[in-house]
Amino acid sequence: MNKGLIFVISGPAGSGKGTVVNLIRNRNPRVGLSVSATTRDPRPGEKDGVSYFFMTKEKFASLLEAGEILEHTEYCSNFYGTLRSEVVRITEEGRDVILEIEVDGAMQVKRLIGDGVVTIMLAAPGAAELERRLRGRGTESEESIVKRLTRAKEELATAPRYDYFVTNETDRAEECADLVMKIMAAEHSRSERSAEYIGEYISELDGIIK
Amino acid sequence: MNKGLIFVISGPAGSGKGTVVNLIRNRNPRVGLSVSATTRDPRPGEKDGVSYFFMTKEKFASLLEAGEILEHTEYCSNFYGTLRSEVVRITEEGRDVILEIEVDGAMQVKRLIGDGVVTIMLAAPGAAELERRLRGRGTESEESIVKRLTRAKEELATAPRYDYFVTNETDRAEECADLVMKIMAAEHSRSERSAEYIGEYISELDGIIK
Repeated sequence: MNKGLIFVISGPAGSGKGTVVNLIRNRNPRVGLSVSATTRDPRPGEKDGVSYFFMTKEKFASLLEAGEILEHTEYCSNFYGTLRSEVVRITEEGRDVILEIEVDGAMQVKRLIGDGVVTIMLAAPGAAELERRLRGRGTESEESIVKRLTRAKEELATAPRYDYFVTNETDRAEECADLVMKIMAAEHSRSERSAEYIGEYISELDGIIK
Repeated sequence: MNKGLIFVISGPAGSGKGTVVNLIRNRNPRVGLSVSATTRDPRPGEKDGVSYFFMTKEKFASLLEAGEILEHTEYCSNFYGTLRSEVVRITEEGRDVILEIEVDGAMQVKRLIGDGVVTIMLAAPGAAELERRLRGRGTESEESIVKRLTRAKEELATAPRYDYFVTNETDRAEECADLVMKIMAAEHSRSERSAEYIGEYISELDGIIK
């Protein structure tokens, strides 16, 4: 059985990333969801290992130190991170996993894991449309919008370091999900992932020819 | 408009390459067909520039010398080759082109053109099935079959130099064509092909933020 691949998907605000990733998960339930680690307390009804892996700050720090946390962020004085063990568990089952993470984290996952990591940046189709999407929410101050646009610009500047760059056209999230799923299928066929299979194939031919 | 890409498809005998390429062309008529150059005489009904570009051996040799013939083969004392001008014409129209060529030619096209060339090797799903397909024709001597298996083995040994390796499962040519079409779509989204677009996007954001 072939191992699954790790698809890291990033997208500046307004890229519609969440919608696209949900569509992919609905269409292909075999795509794995990596349960994150967190240092915050469980809320009522949250189960350890399902909602999150709940742990102390000391435990989180020691996993981070050991390279067992592939990327993390801090929010309201608590840490949230992606566990290497979770990602390995899913890919060893032959299932792909999608990690929705920001630019810094994406490059770190690529660095820490290397082979089998494919990075995809999603983006709104152009600056004018991105501005329209951010303003369309109608809930933010001018200052906040400028801040989000500036952050989007910084993130887009890292797009050339991603393997793929995909624009999510307005009202075309289904098509965008479709294209990302094509990328996922195509990546499984990259020849470097078949090196072992090709070697066996050639040995078998040798056996027949002799 | 984005330029088209050049998909070089190779496959050892028994890979079913011809069937798969025809399926792709039928499903996507925008995929271009590059008319080859040849030094043989036109047959009744063949039109220059439609069936082939007919030319003298001197003309063919001078185009070859000038790097204008991307790959060629000799058959019955005549030459057949792929013209750079044809491939450029189609890709400049924003259309992809598929070149069905053998291993040596495939690597040469990659070397002569570089950017925008994607190589795909098709293969029968394993040695036993390849043998079955070759014997199944029932028209060849044992010696000829061993020769074809040996040639297939040599070609498979070059698979790691291809970008993609795709097996064509028995009675699943449609699925194989589907996967190759996904690869074609995915390749258009590789971020290096969007470098110019990303640059413009960032400039436009700069304009809005100021």
